[in-house]
Amino acid sequence: MYIGVDLGGTNIVVGLVDEQCNVISTKSRETNSCRGKDPIIKDIIEMIVEIKSESIEDIKAIGVGIPGFADKAGNVKAIINLKWKNVNLSEILEGKFKIPVAIDNDATVAGVAEFEAGAMRGYDNGVLLTLGTGIGAGIIINGQVFNGSHAIGSEIGHMVIGENFYTCNCGRNGCFETFASSTGIIKYAEKLLKEGENSEVINNYIKGDYSKLNAKIIIDAAKKGDSLGLKVFNRAIKYLTIGILNIMNIIDPEVIAFGGGVSNAGEFLLEALRIEVEKTRYNKDFPVPEFKIAHFKNDAGIIGAAMIGKHKIN
Amino acid sequence: MYIGVDLGGTNIVVGLVDEQCNVISTKSRETNSCRGKDPIIKDIIEMIVEIKSESIEDIKAIGVGIPGFADKAGNVKAIINLKWKNVNLSEILEGKFKIPVAIDNDATVAGVAEFEAGAMRGYDNGVLLTLGTGIGAGIIINGQVFNGSHAIGSEIGHMVIGENFYTCNCGRNGCFETFASSTGIIKYAEKLLKEGENSEVINNYIKGDYSKLNAKIIIDAAKKGDSLGLKVFNRAIKYLTIGILNIMNIIDPEVIAFGGGVSNAGEFLLEALRIEVEKTRYNKDFPVPEFKIAHFKNDAGIIGAAMIGKHKIN
Repeated sequence: MYIGVDLGGTNIVVGLVDEQCNVISTKSRETNSCRGKDPIIKDIIEMIVEIKSESIEDIKAIGVGIPGFADKAGNVKAIINLKWKNVNLSEILEGKFKIPVAIDNDATVAGVAEFEAGAMRGYDNGVLLTLGTGIGAGIIINGQVFNGSHAIGSEIGHMVIGENFYTCNCGRNGCFETFASSTGIIKYAEKLLKEGENSEVINNYIKGDYSKLNAKIIIDAAKKGDSLGLKVFNRAIKYLTIGILNIMNIIDPEVIAFGGGVSNAGEFLLEALRIEVEKTRYNKDFPVPEFKIAHFKNDAGIIGAAMIGKHKIN
Repeated sequence: MYIGVDLGGTNIVVGLVDEQCNVISTKSRETNSCRGKDPIIKDIIEMIVEIKSESIEDIKAIGVGIPGFADKAGNVKAIINLKWKNVNLSEILEGKFKIPVAIDNDATVAGVAEFEAGAMRGYDNGVLLTLGTGIGAGIIINGQVFNGSHAIGSEIGHMVIGENFYTCNCGRNGCFETFASSTGIIKYAEKLLKEGENSEVINNYIKGDYSKLNAKIIIDAAKKGDSLGLKVFNRAIKYLTIGILNIMNIIDPEVIAFGGGVSNAGEFLLEALRIEVEKTRYNKDFPVPEFKIAHFKNDAGIIGAAMIGKHKIN
């Protein structure tokens, strides 16, 4: 039995996970990120103690997924949104629980969940792209997590692929995630609406309140044939395809899985991507990766975290 | 002792290489690419026979670097410029010489040479970028050649990073190599000159004959402070940096080595890149790879080829 911790910007979720990636039980508390690291770590420890007491089997290892960077030793190097820098979290948890603790980036951890028991199961080389507020990536190469020589790679969301009308959070222009994340989709729809383009379908939902715009409303409008919805969706597909072809040209994976809010578009998204990739790729007789929707939704974080704990002892 | 074969678009070079990557002797013939595969393979075999007869030690393996793609079994999948498709070259050579034969992409093979005995020696994770007619890449991850699950990765030159004023050979727009290869540099200088911008330094060389433009003339002009030369050089640095930051964000290597004609600019190139990377990268406290000029010039192909042969038997 393993414990997986999903430290998010909004919630901390701790789960008991068995060898087969089944989630036995979970606990959740609000992160309340502004309160600083010590009370958050205290909460994590208390939740691990609680969930540990529910397990009739020994806990072999703990894994933690964080919305930031950890070094190879499992210490947190930086979580920008929580303002954490150089926090020896694995040392603290190992000292407390006397079992191995592994820490890695949340998208990497979600990639591990998909590789162990989800959409990338059975493949040796795969990339999970989480199309949410930003774009996260979990890369598996030869059956192993890949995140670079200092564990700061796999940041595919900040790969520059063109020029965009707004600047990325990272301060640069043209990052993949500014074109193809939920945020990128919403911002482009808002831009068109503010420039006077009309969409009855979308306006029925938002009634002039741009803060109500979300990727689902826009993609649903595209599904209904709404011209503004289609224009925004097609632009996202164009740039998603540029990013995917870059991934194919560099990493050449067997499978690419899509998670995050945008992936709820399901087959509508995959089919559009398959067509655009086929249309624009170079060597038409070379193999193309499988495109799949990620299997896990909210549980990816705790399952993947538990599995990086498991990998640490195996 | 090993034999390395460098099959290029212009010349075929075959070399005798020892365990320590020393080139003992070489033979060269013109590729004469239009004559088709059979006479070229015949030449390769004859040259191997000749060079083998010069070795007093046994030849343990043969490696071949090709300007195209090979599959994991060592067969040529495609060499676009030579119009080769699915040629079982390793089978032919193994049948003839009864020793192991390895085949890989020329930039990958050059990366292996730099990793074994050149600028990337002593690092476990590195990327060689050859800035020539195009941009080739040789990726080493955890001390191993990395070229993807179908051996069609590592094509960093075709990573799209923006929009350019001309289309890439591959049919797409915005490929890295259209901005930062010799070709990209020459095309932009030609465009500016044709648009009426003047450069005394460059015109002294080319005297209105655009076919005389090359990367050396342009970068030398930049070194002398020529404003057109600097404009072209700075644009190449801007986009090289975008490509490098993408590589850092995805692969996070310890070292990036630069080969090919543009790399003859040496420290002038490296220093400009270090400044631009420092200025535009995101997490300023994260490590940056070492930037180095590749060690091998013309010999990279035969040394690296010999070494992939060596790897095949070890």
